[in-house]
Amino acid sequence: MDIEALRADTPGCAHRVHLNNAGAGLLSRRTLRAMTDHLELEAALGGYEAEAREAERFDAVYTDLAALVGGRPGEVALFDSATRAWGAAFSAMHFAPGDRILTGRAEYGSNALSLLHTARRTGAELVVVPDDESGQVDTAALAGLVDERTRLVALSHVPSSGGLVNPVAEVGRITRAAGVPFLLDATQSVGQFPVDVTRIGCDMLCGTGRKFLRGPRGIGFLWVRTEALDLLEPPLATLKGATWDGGGGLTWSEGARRFETWEISGANVLGLGAAVRQALELGVDRIGRRAAALGARLRDRLAEVPGVAVRDLGRERCAIVTCTVGALPAAEVAAALARHGVNVSVTAPDHTPFDAQRRALPPLVRFSPHYYTTGDEVDRPVDLVAALARRTA
Amino acid sequence: MDIEALRADTPGCAHRVHLNNAGAGLLSRRTLRAMTDHLELEAALGGYEAEAREAERFDAVYTDLAALVGGRPGEVALFDSATRAWGAAFSAMHFAPGDRILTGRAEYGSNALSLLHTARRTGAELVVVPDDESGQVDTAALAGLVDERTRLVALSHVPSSGGLVNPVAEVGRITRAAGVPFLLDATQSVGQFPVDVTRIGCDMLCGTGRKFLRGPRGIGFLWVRTEALDLLEPPLATLKGATWDGGGGLTWSEGARRFETWEISGANVLGLGAAVRQALELGVDRIGRRAAALGARLRDRLAEVPGVAVRDLGRERCAIVTCTVGALPAAEVAAALARHGVNVSVTAPDHTPFDAQRRALPPLVRFSPHYYTTGDEVDRPVDLVAALARRTA
Repeated sequence: MDIEALRADTPGCAHRVHLNNAGAGLLSRRTLRAMTDHLELEAALGGYEAEAREAERFDAVYTDLAALVGGRPGEVALFDSATRAWGAAFSAMHFAPGDRILTGRAEYGSNALSLLHTARRTGAELVVVPDDESGQVDTAALAGLVDERTRLVALSHVPSSGGLVNPVAEVGRITRAAGVPFLLDATQSVGQFPVDVTRIGCDMLCGTGRKFLRGPRGIGFLWVRTEALDLLEPPLATLKGATWDGGGGLTWSEGARRFETWEISGANVLGLGAAVRQALELGVDRIGRRAAALGARLRDRLAEVPGVAVRDLGRERCAIVTCTVGALPAAEVAAALARHGVNVSVTAPDHTPFDAQRRALPPLVRFSPHYYTTGDEVDRPVDLVAALARRTA
Repeated sequence: MDIEALRADTPGCAHRVHLNNAGAGLLSRRTLRAMTDHLELEAALGGYEAEAREAERFDAVYTDLAALVGGRPGEVALFDSATRAWGAAFSAMHFAPGDRILTGRAEYGSNALSLLHTARRTGAELVVVPDDESGQVDTAALAGLVDERTRLVALSHVPSSGGLVNPVAEVGRITRAAGVPFLLDATQSVGQFPVDVTRIGCDMLCGTGRKFLRGPRGIGFLWVRTEALDLLEPPLATLKGATWDGGGGLTWSEGARRFETWEISGANVLGLGAAVRQALELGVDRIGRRAAALGARLRDRLAEVPGVAVRDLGRERCAIVTCTVGALPAAEVAAALARHGVNVSVTAPDHTPFDAQRRALPPLVRFSPHYYTTGDEVDRPVDLVAALARRTA
């Protein structure tokens, strides 16, 4: 990869040290232009007239997303966020008293809230599978918990904070052997490293545009294995998703389209398409190796700073690095870094509520480099953190 | 209104005769710039960093939307579409066997599908209230149908096709007297003419950015009367909408925010804000008078063309005009007009399924001028239609 060329094509690299790719990655000029060009086309022709003209490019986004995750284009549906995509799959399942839903300690906050809420509403039991000694989901424990009552395993691939990569292919082997649907939240993993639904063996997967894919804010997607469609009945029906039989019945559209609604932001769809295509061209394997190496370098250097406690878990770790700096509130650390032109974020306990409760975590400072980050950009913030830690020691 | 100045500020006016405001209105330069400026800010600073910088402008969008419909800012929630906004309200209600839901013949297709689907799933009864002799919803019939079994009245203010404006304030008087929640789909009315929730007396209202408000594609909103919140329990919970109590329970966020998800397109929010502000500055009453006058002129002239059948209904009519042209398929009429630079749309029967079934409607040609349309722009297409009608007679 020609890092200098990639950085030159990324306006934000000129202004900031952007270590918030787990929040939102920096747009490339090409992705930005795909969006602004389409908005200008809409302004010139009309919103629907522009969409009709770009119909083939819209279709290609489904094809490229399918290629990215290893599925088929008809198995992909677009939404305005990964949370909405996850919700489209989850709310299309039925749960009854005595049913069991298994999740992990690393589960993302919004998913956790919907799992808790649904368990309370339906009488299903939500079981949080324990971690193994490394901090990743304990697959032996999971295998022991999967039984005939289990209706769903819902798991986050990479949590919002904590740096780990869950062993999802092992989870997939267990769920497929047991015939239990597996809903994977790949919001933080798609675009960061290779994510392949066949290798993983999940049945449903959601992802977002804005994070490691470097796509627009306000777009996400759902992939549903064709064979899993029969398990799912959307709670609402729309003109894109179903047709009326003229009496009391309706027929769902083919494939994952049944989950979509009529309206979508064309600029965001085409921006996502540009970002996905760039990831495919660069190679997600190469992207993943470089992002992980930068994450490891940052994590290792932070761990050496007196007063800094790295809060990461798991056997396999990624480009997300979380820590506390003495007793300094994470928001103060982030604000101090921002004054030096460094973007990091603060992950609140409610973003990984089960893990945060278990480990009694305060808000954490989260660093998330990506493949276009330089070595210097991960080293300088460490020096800034070290200076902060010294001042408060 | 200075129509020439407004048109000069609308790039699409230079290229097309845009009579598809019921599909998507033309963006003003100011709205377009609000979007592209924010995308460029995101590219320069990062997606979350740009949102933080523009926090006050984001808040102002809720205030302006509340001013537009006559509610309070805390009663407004943003979504990626009106359909999603409608679904957020509708799916937060509970229905049981024997419950009744009343709707109208003009109900929008996606709503109709969800109403039918929910009736089938829950055992509730869906009743389509008949029209009066003018073709608008028969309020006397509605009053007779509202009883102790009635859990909801769901109605479209202005249907996708058919040109009518339903007498929603009369409906509101009936529902408030009976204590029945009233969910109004104002997708085609907000921005076209004044829509005031107090005057109407509805409890929930959804609208979209892209149509007569001239805002972005991919954004919509829900207004929920504070007093109606107790009737609603969202089926899913998210980090923006709720907080976990650490055990099995959760607490909903204040006001309508409980329906929102974490992620949203900032460019679309600010674009919507710019469009709403422009509508407020121009005055929705003035907008409404001019749009209706242009609609009436177009309707009257089309009605005089031999072979053309105007398919509009209702006592009060708006800027949406629908017709058939002899036996010519509507798609051919639209394509012929497009070749002359005129944007119109085709409304399929499934967009107003109950009305289309009742009247055995084929696809219709839909014309929808707006306040920035000129008199010449509504006259020229009539001449083109007349020529088409002569050729096929």
